[in-house]
Amino acid sequence: MDKLNYRDMKPADLRLLVRTGEITGPTAGMCGPYAQANLVILPKSLAYDFLLFTQRNPKSCPLLEVSDEGARALKFIASGADIATDIPKYRIYEKGIMTGEYTDVAQFWRKDFVSFLIGCSFSFEAELLEAGVPVRHIEEGRNVPMYRTNIPCASAGAFHGSTVVSMRPIPRELVVKAVTVTAAMPRVHGSPLHIGDPAAIGIANLAKPDFGEAVTINEGEVPVFWACGVTPQAAIMEAKPEIAITHAPGHMFVTDVKNVNLKE
Amino acid sequence: MDKLNYRDMKPADLRLLVRTGEITGPTAGMCGPYAQANLVILPKSLAYDFLLFTQRNPKSCPLLEVSDEGARALKFIASGADIATDIPKYRIYEKGIMTGEYTDVAQFWRKDFVSFLIGCSFSFEAELLEAGVPVRHIEEGRNVPMYRTNIPCASAGAFHGSTVVSMRPIPRELVVKAVTVTAAMPRVHGSPLHIGDPAAIGIANLAKPDFGEAVTINEGEVPVFWACGVTPQAAIMEAKPEIAITHAPGHMFVTDVKNVNLKE
Repeated sequence: MDKLNYRDMKPADLRLLVRTGEITGPTAGMCGPYAQANLVILPKSLAYDFLLFTQRNPKSCPLLEVSDEGARALKFIASGADIATDIPKYRIYEKGIMTGEYTDVAQFWRKDFVSFLIGCSFSFEAELLEAGVPVRHIEEGRNVPMYRTNIPCASAGAFHGSTVVSMRPIPRELVVKAVTVTAAMPRVHGSPLHIGDPAAIGIANLAKPDFGEAVTINEGEVPVFWACGVTPQAAIMEAKPEIAITHAPGHMFVTDVKNVNLKE
Repeated sequence: MDKLNYRDMKPADLRLLVRTGEITGPTAGMCGPYAQANLVILPKSLAYDFLLFTQRNPKSCPLLEVSDEGARALKFIASGADIATDIPKYRIYEKGIMTGEYTDVAQFWRKDFVSFLIGCSFSFEAELLEAGVPVRHIEEGRNVPMYRTNIPCASAGAFHGSTVVSMRPIPRELVVKAVTVTAAMPRVHGSPLHIGDPAAIGIANLAKPDFGEAVTINEGEVPVFWACGVTPQAAIMEAKPEIAITHAPGHMFVTDVKNVNLKE
């Protein structure tokens, strides 16, 4: 089955292919109109501080769902899903250090795990393209460039750090359109954090992103910066919890929620 | 000092008058352009479940701020405030039963208290009036009528219940305007939950609200229903916590955040 079919596939069918190991790669473009989500799994002992961190930093940590303690099923955004098996690649961090990548984390499951599903910029990129705003890293087949900034997160208990942003170069005449399209989708990062001069938010060199890959910026284009789902991961690495499980970059959880329904 | 001055007063000055006991009545209309908030104080042992309840029910429980454990100061929405003294009237509930009303709860303060400040419909009513949409209970000098519905809340741990809504009769030709104005303010309940037939959401008789007071509905007006900040209070009463402190109805916390800045 080729990629084209994955685009048109229903999320529940795709999750089954992930669960049985038929899909182990990045999920970009799969199940076109449906939202994909970042995953963070933490022990319950850290869940309150992390939930408060997301409440205090809604642009970088827009929550789509928080599981019940110990539950591998979700209640709201993905019917019949198993959060321990339905992501193509997971990462396990122990005390802030990545100790392994796995296609399935069922063997590591604990009764005190809480799963946080966080909105992803794939959702607003689909809307940008639909509105005629180009998305450079998609055109160039790269991972979106991401940068650490000097914009502090509001801390919560063990969790603190600075905001990580993703950058998309936007033709000058489409910057306003890019703001209005994304502002309408607060559950997937919402409006930009910053437009223009990278130095103003502590970014020294756009050619050297801290995560992802650099992209071409053409004459007449303005770099536009959005809060990024890597922010909570960076805060977790900083907090060095005994254990944390996340998705591997680009290997997202595909939900049953259409992007168009995140516009509220 | 008369009510007119309170309308133009800065929030910090008003909170000082509340703290010193000069103001002990309802806050409607005070500090005109600034948002007012509902208050819920719970012991930390219940704070995770309640925070999750607000995350799962964002229309009835739009959080403006959650305090640090034990802190009487806030970090984000009210500089220099003391949450134990700066509300004109508090209610204390023990095991779901109201055991007293106080103008100050400093004497009851505990190191494990967490304060939840929740957006209030006063904010969107100001915007409705500004947009030329009449607000009947303000015209008639009454408390807004509120009704229990058959719309279930998403439960979280100890907290569950059904959604409580407030109702405003809107002239037919202004219903769309009322939707768009309030949809732009998701942090203060956002767009309506329901338009029209009260029976469709389990309301038997508009003339007999469960909370607040009935208002006149004129020919050509449609009842429009918004999620209400009484919803979390009802869920708390149902959960019967050892202790909970709330504001008394209409006696709100006045924040430093302008309503216009809640439009995002």
